[in-house]
Amino acid sequence: MTMKLYCMGESGNAYKAALTLELAGADWEPVFVDFFNGEARKPEWRAEVNEMGEVPALVDGDVKLSQSAVIQQYVIDQTGSPLGGKPEDKYEVMRWVLWDNNKMSSHAGPLRFQMNFLSEKHRSDAVIWFLHGRTQAALEILELRLTGRDWIVGDAITVADISCCSYLYYPEPFGFDRADWPHIDAWLTRISDTPGWKHPYDLMPGHPDDRA
Amino acid sequence: MTMKLYCMGESGNAYKAALTLELAGADWEPVFVDFFNGEARKPEWRAEVNEMGEVPALVDGDVKLSQSAVIQQYVIDQTGSPLGGKPEDKYEVMRWVLWDNNKMSSHAGPLRFQMNFLSEKHRSDAVIWFLHGRTQAALEILELRLTGRDWIVGDAITVADISCCSYLYYPEPFGFDRADWPHIDAWLTRISDTPGWKHPYDLMPGHPDDRA
Repeated sequence: MTMKLYCMGESGNAYKAALTLELAGADWEPVFVDFFNGEARKPEWRAEVNEMGEVPALVDGDVKLSQSAVIQQYVIDQTGSPLGGKPEDKYEVMRWVLWDNNKMSSHAGPLRFQMNFLSEKHRSDAVIWFLHGRTQAALEILELRLTGRDWIVGDAITVADISCCSYLYYPEPFGFDRADWPHIDAWLTRISDTPGWKHPYDLMPGHPDDRA
Repeated sequence: MTMKLYCMGESGNAYKAALTLELAGADWEPVFVDFFNGEARKPEWRAEVNEMGEVPALVDGDVKLSQSAVIQQYVIDQTGSPLGGKPEDKYEVMRWVLWDNNKMSSHAGPLRFQMNFLSEKHRSDAVIWFLHGRTQAALEILELRLTGRDWIVGDAITVADISCCSYLYYPEPFGFDRADWPHIDAWLTRISDTPGWKHPYDLMPGHPDDRA
């Protein structure tokens, strides 16, 4: 049965799940969620798809999952994809996926949202500054990690790479310029050179132009 | 060998690891890290303990781990503790641990920090308001989840409960009052009634009074 990923192109969190499904060769299809207009926060959507009111969410028959890292793990378990890394790297892969969810995407995502998708009257320079500082601190740790390494863990792409890169291909400005981060830059090229790789806007429906 | 948890009493993230170690009956000891004075961000600490520059970090012989959820998983794997939940609940436990790291603690922690530990000149009302809104939204989802349930997943305490409760026993104000959230309140009592439970300030060294 084809797995359904509830998602939208603008969401780096959804991209983590979508790119994992795609690179693992899973049988899946995206289902667009109009998150910015509150679709995921409606009671019926919460009841049917995800009580947490967030994308991505995966539905595979009777299985309903959310949180990108959980979807990644499920896809690996179902497909046997090497994207999970070697068994001996289990904790290290998990550590970087968690770090991304906790420190990297969790600041880069809201920062990009504030700077590009939030109406001016709801925008706050202080909040942007706060999120910018935290995003830059995370980028420093990532740049350091990638110094002298091709991949975040081990010698091949894993869900740790997919998680950490998830907001870094977007064209909308959020204070990240690949030219400032040579090791991150080379690593992003390495990921996008992986056979089957697609840009978030090519992998999922939903693009800022659709809303213009 | 006794596992060493690098931590401090004020950190709810460290508490997730410490309470898991304690309730799992692991052989462990806390090692105080003066995080607020930058100890974890020093190059030598990063090199020796955790390149991410954050607490908690666990050292068990040659094994070095960070990110509370990874430490929790390691402790479960080492001790066979039922805190990991039943095998069939694997994704659901992981989902709530991730959600906590992504949406609950990641806002409640910085909010409490801003309101209680940050000097006035670095404090921003707009940032506090932003974090407050996100914390309240997370509390609503948690309250809803706990309506009609004793535990977040299954019928016993798991690391999902330990993760989600981690900032909710602290006395410092951050806009959370147990009286406003009856199901969260009853669940917090259920957790603190668990044999072996300790308050974060009783489980780890480091208390706001030490800095007064």
